[in-house]
Amino acid sequence: MTQPSASQPSERSFASDNQATVHPEVLAALSEVNTGHQPAYGDDTVTGRLREVVRRHFGEQAEVFPMFNGTGANVVSLQAMSERWSAVVCPESAHINTDECGAAEKIAGLKLIPVPAADGKLTPGLVDRYATGFGNIQRREPAVVSITQSTELGTVYTPDETAAVAAAAHERGLSVHMDGARIANAAASLGLPLRALTTDAGVDVLSFGGTKNGLLLGEAVVVLNPAAVRGLEYLRKSSMQLASKMRYVSAQLLALLDGDLWLRNASHANAMARRLEAAARAVPGVEITQPVQANSVFALMRKDAAERLRKRFPFYTWDAATGEVRWVCSFDTTEGDVDAFAAALAEETAA
Amino acid sequence: MTQPSASQPSERSFASDNQATVHPEVLAALSEVNTGHQPAYGDDTVTGRLREVVRRHFGEQAEVFPMFNGTGANVVSLQAMSERWSAVVCPESAHINTDECGAAEKIAGLKLIPVPAADGKLTPGLVDRYATGFGNIQRREPAVVSITQSTELGTVYTPDETAAVAAAAHERGLSVHMDGARIANAAASLGLPLRALTTDAGVDVLSFGGTKNGLLLGEAVVVLNPAAVRGLEYLRKSSMQLASKMRYVSAQLLALLDGDLWLRNASHANAMARRLEAAARAVPGVEITQPVQANSVFALMRKDAAERLRKRFPFYTWDAATGEVRWVCSFDTTEGDVDAFAAALAEETAA
Amino acid sequence: MTQPSASQPSERSFASDNQATVHPEVLAALSEVNTGHQPAYGDDTVTGRLREVVRRHFGEQAEVFPMFNGTGANVVSLQAMSERWSAVVCPESAHINTDECGAAEKIAGLKLIPVPAADGKLTPGLVDRYATGFGNIQRREPAVVSITQSTELGTVYTPDETAAVAAAAHERGLSVHMDGARIANAAASLGLPLRALTTDAGVDVLSFGGTKNGLLLGEAVVVLNPAAVRGLEYLRKSSMQLASKMRYVSAQLLALLDGDLWLRNASHANAMARRLEAAARAVPGVEITQPVQANSVFALMRKDAAERLRKRFPFYTWDAATGEVRWVCSFDTTEGDVDAFAAALAEETAA
Amino acid sequence: MTQPSASQPSERSFASDNQATVHPEVLAALSEVNTGHQPAYGDDTVTGRLREVVRRHFGEQAEVFPMFNGTGANVVSLQAMSERWSAVVCPESAHINTDECGAAEKIAGLKLIPVPAADGKLTPGLVDRYATGFGNIQRREPAVVSITQSTELGTVYTPDETAAVAAAAHERGLSVHMDGARIANAAASLGLPLRALTTDAGVDVLSFGGTKNGLLLGEAVVVLNPAAVRGLEYLRKSSMQLASKMRYVSAQLLALLDGDLWLRNASHANAMARRLEAAARAVPGVEITQPVQANSVFALMRKDAAERLRKRFPFYTWDAATGEVRWVCSFDTTEGDVDAFAAALAEETAA
Repeated sequence: MTQPSASQPSERSFASDNQATVHPEVLAALSEVNTGHQPAYGDDTVTGRLREVVRRHFGEQAEVFPMFNGTGANVVSLQAMSERWSAVVCPESAHINTDECGAAEKIAGLKLIPVPAADGKLTPGLVDRYATGFGNIQRREPAVVSITQSTELGTVYTPDETAAVAAAAHERGLSVHMDGARIANAAASLGLPLRALTTDAGVDVLSFGGTKNGLLLGEAVVVLNPAAVRGLEYLRKSSMQLASKMRYVSAQLLALLDGDLWLRNASHANAMARRLEAAARAVPGVEITQPVQANSVFALMRKDAAERLRKRFPFYTWDAATGEVRWVCSFDTTEGDVDAFAAALAEETAA
Repeated sequence: MTQPSASQPSERSFASDNQATVHPEVLAALSEVNTGHQPAYGDDTVTGRLREVVRRHFGEQAEVFPMFNGTGANVVSLQAMSERWSAVVCPESAHINTDECGAAEKIAGLKLIPVPAADGKLTPGLVDRYATGFGNIQRREPAVVSITQSTELGTVYTPDETAAVAAAAHERGLSVHMDGARIANAAASLGLPLRALTTDAGVDVLSFGGTKNGLLLGEAVVVLNPAAVRGLEYLRKSSMQLASKMRYVSAQLLALLDGDLWLRNASHANAMARRLEAAARAVPGVEITQPVQANSVFALMRKDAAERLRKRFPFYTWDAATGEVRWVCSFDTTEGDVDAFAAALAEETAA
Repeated sequence: MTQPSASQPSERSFASDNQATVHPEVLAALSEVNTGHQPAYGDDTVTGRLREVVRRHFGEQAEVFPMFNGTGANVVSLQAMSERWSAVVCPESAHINTDECGAAEKIAGLKLIPVPAADGKLTPGLVDRYATGFGNIQRREPAVVSITQSTELGTVYTPDETAAVAAAAHERGLSVHMDGARIANAAASLGLPLRALTTDAGVDVLSFGGTKNGLLLGEAVVVLNPAAVRGLEYLRKSSMQLASKMRYVSAQLLALLDGDLWLRNASHANAMARRLEAAARAVPGVEITQPVQANSVFALMRKDAAERLRKRFPFYTWDAATGEVRWVCSFDTTEGDVDAFAAALAEETAA
Repeated sequence: MTQPSASQPSERSFASDNQATVHPEVLAALSEVNTGHQPAYGDDTVTGRLREVVRRHFGEQAEVFPMFNGTGANVVSLQAMSERWSAVVCPESAHINTDECGAAEKIAGLKLIPVPAADGKLTPGLVDRYATGFGNIQRREPAVVSITQSTELGTVYTPDETAAVAAAAHERGLSVHMDGARIANAAASLGLPLRALTTDAGVDVLSFGGTKNGLLLGEAVVVLNPAAVRGLEYLRKSSMQLASKMRYVSAQLLALLDGDLWLRNASHANAMARRLEAAARAVPGVEITQPVQANSVFALMRKDAAERLRKRFPFYTWDAATGEVRWVCSFDTTEGDVDAFAAALAEETAA
């Protein structure tokens, strides 16, 4: 992706859901827990409550480990699921492969096996083709399949699709990691509880995303299958992802998960993306390139028009070669934002 | 350190300043910046303002890089200051050596050269003795001297002491890192501006601490000598310390540094430590073991009395062999807290 | 590659040139230097002579660092040419990507950017397309282009082709590494001195291969452009590639390079590969799939015939999907070996 | 250690046993196996025979993995015995701590816990004192105790001493690594079979040294307790210690272990050290500082005399502060060498 050109802070951005604000209920939750001394590093009562709420969503076996950011959640997960000589099979478009500055290689010494997948989704066939070389010491031993839900391309795995990938992985002795930076958007899209997309579909470890869904900062590793991990607490600390005043991360995650804020935020962002998709499809010269199943819209448009539009609303070019662009909606994107953007799109495309 | 025994959240703790609350002005600052979309990863206006404020404190050349936690600030600093074959000279008691689960070794492959120092402070003589082996490829090349201000033992380097260590380091071609997780406490103790303890004393890179001084979570690498670092932005990202919604970390640091909150908080914590020291010195059988120059008090007392006291107020045993204990005061420790603790100390010691 | 099935030691193998013997002149060289005490770690007279001989081949600026094996030479080179946040652009088929068990990721934390290239060769266009993302801290910064000469597919870069890749790399600020595990075969194939393929073509650092060309074990990093590397001696030691009794590695490399043994061995292996190619082309049902420019022959043949043939002579299946096989000739492969293999190939293909 | 000053290759050196020659029987063994093609990477018949011979020495459960050098053997061992969050307890003087350029930290991300021990030997009491912090995620989890036999200070553990350390380690859940770069010298000194010092004393994994005992280059990891390791073959390859033409490493180790060459070489070196010790004790002003139990002699002498002596025979100053020197004898040190050195010592000390 090339950077959105607007160097000025923009009022309304379609560049990423990490350019959004913090939901007011999240800020309120911070104030609520801001009383009295509490043990550090997760022994506080807020994190205790989070543990219960996470089990309600993901099952009695689930264990939650708050982290600072998505890269941290992913790389701590992958370490806990692997050995020093492991490889991780993932789509070429996976965030761990393209947007984490090689943290998996640097922090964990892992080798990624990137799989071409036009829609960002692995399949059992792809797992079969790329998870190879077992017992060949010249190669790494494939240990983990990592999939992203919703994907970096705004598509969503159905529970059956996830279960099929998971079955293929488990058959070969690999465990399954889900990068759920936008899992709430996937659940909202499918109209299903979080558990249906994860625990019940055979996912072993989930990076649960909060930052892109209305938090200040806060993600979590949710271990769905405790047998799939080792040493997670040590790895969180030595990977520099352990918050000392953890209650303030946990409180945010609680604000999201205790009620339905996670779902409200994601549903709204998804609805805004569909609204944008509908408007864009009506613009001649704009082609939607991926199914709009979560909160992102991918489109092809003339490069000059894109450059003019970007001066009015920040967004990323996804593929510099083809000129494909990405527009992302957030929990705080309004109908007015979308309509203004769509109008500008029509103007610039017609210009 | 052994863990404080109280598994219950305690109302008032002397275990660590990371068990404290968030200062209300910090929470208020979060609300203030919570409007409109902003570029991620530091291109926002809040981080822009932080840059200016940091230059006001540390000099025009200073560059600030917000981080999630102290381990992150330390290990990103050390990487940016070193090569793959470097060693870091530090006191044996340094946080990077004792309390970061080997992050420097794991993340950066660094080798630490721990130096025995009873008061937690390096000296030119110690640098001379331990920064050796230059040009011997069987050894690592010493590249950085890391000191802590205030130290893990609650002591404070005067500017002259820091300058002498820095001069010794620079003479040998090493650069100087300061772990300033509690630098505000040191500045308050000395009655000097931050710059006098850092830039003006020859420090090259500072880990500036916020979390222990009233933030929710937030630290920063402050580069005082840009020639001493390479690749810091890449290292922050690949070391998983780059906040996407950075304005919310920067806003906290701004709340601390724009006015004098950093100083008010630290001065209060220091005052509470001195109050506790005075009270403890009056208790027969309690011996203060380190000069109380910041917000910590180290003491020797009977182990049985310590165990009873710990049931009433959490604190750490610092040295299991000798029974030395550590009591830490925070910005939100009250005179009442100290007096109640001192009374309990007297009771349990007399029992 | 799948393993050759023959678990018995085979008399004559076409599996790899690392299954060959040691050339008698190399063993003799070991005896010659086996007198008197000598400083360890490269300060011996034998390594001193090697330095001179290497400069004769590669130019006055060239510096040689003996290593144990090819993976070591490659990964020490790449570290010395890069930063902690670098990426390395290489063909998908590169040994560093496929056959070194992820040593580059593990030892150096590097991220490889594998480039699809059917004949194993990079081009300026491919460098242009894959060496991207400069200044984007979410990505690694491309720092090195690594090419293999002769390639893993038995093809050879002309000096002009290498120079064009090097120019493209240098324009973008990348330096050029050449994995020369079989560089002697390339030079023999082109009828050119080693220097023409390396120094004169813009290569910065060479992994010079000895083991596959008649040594017991011994490779070397040859730095052709000293400005392209940092810390090589520390990196060799800390990467566990520093031989204490180095004279015995250097003596082998000297045996190869002081006279023309490097060229005699490689020329013979190449000639055997061409003889095999010619014979194989005459066999109906066998298709040669790559130009035979060095000492390897790649071919397509029926899988059942391949399996039967493998019971008589070990060789690798290169691509399990297509059934493509690889046959490698060594300095000690005889015309009789080739003829016997070709006869068996004809028999099994006809069966 | 400071480098021996003699930059000229010296005829006779007391600097290290890695400055010695290769034993003629070892060179002969290379010639013997130099016939026919053989599978690479350890599937050859020579390595097969080595496996049998190693089991004869160390017990039926023993598994041998040839390596290039001692650092490689140590760091591959430690990785196979540990997790990503482990610490290794070792004497401060351990080679892994002082002379491997931080390979354990770099390659494995391990944290060493160096234990002061004047004679280079750990004891159960030291294990008890330094193997602490279990379950404290701010610290690394101690996983391995590493001891050196014979030690870097030329002392030897009795089997009872080793067994006591091993018992202390095992009680705490740690496994036991022995750096046996000079284990043959220890066995010769004790007059015991290798097994008595290792398998029977509770050692789990041994780095078996060959290079310092007459090989060209060649060490081995010998796994005595297969339950103590994981992934060793992958770790050897990804740590760049896997020889392709392994038969030539295995043949050397076989030459040492199949008959009694290991013992003859070590016994001779030890005898020369004792001869030197006796002569040195007779020189006024020379003080022997460590028991001479293997092939090294440590002594205090006037620094000016040491400098003059060093111009005649290379040796290392062990401790620049005290001026303590180290003299090492090799399998090829002669009585004449010792007598000439002792005479020079007497002369220079008297001067």
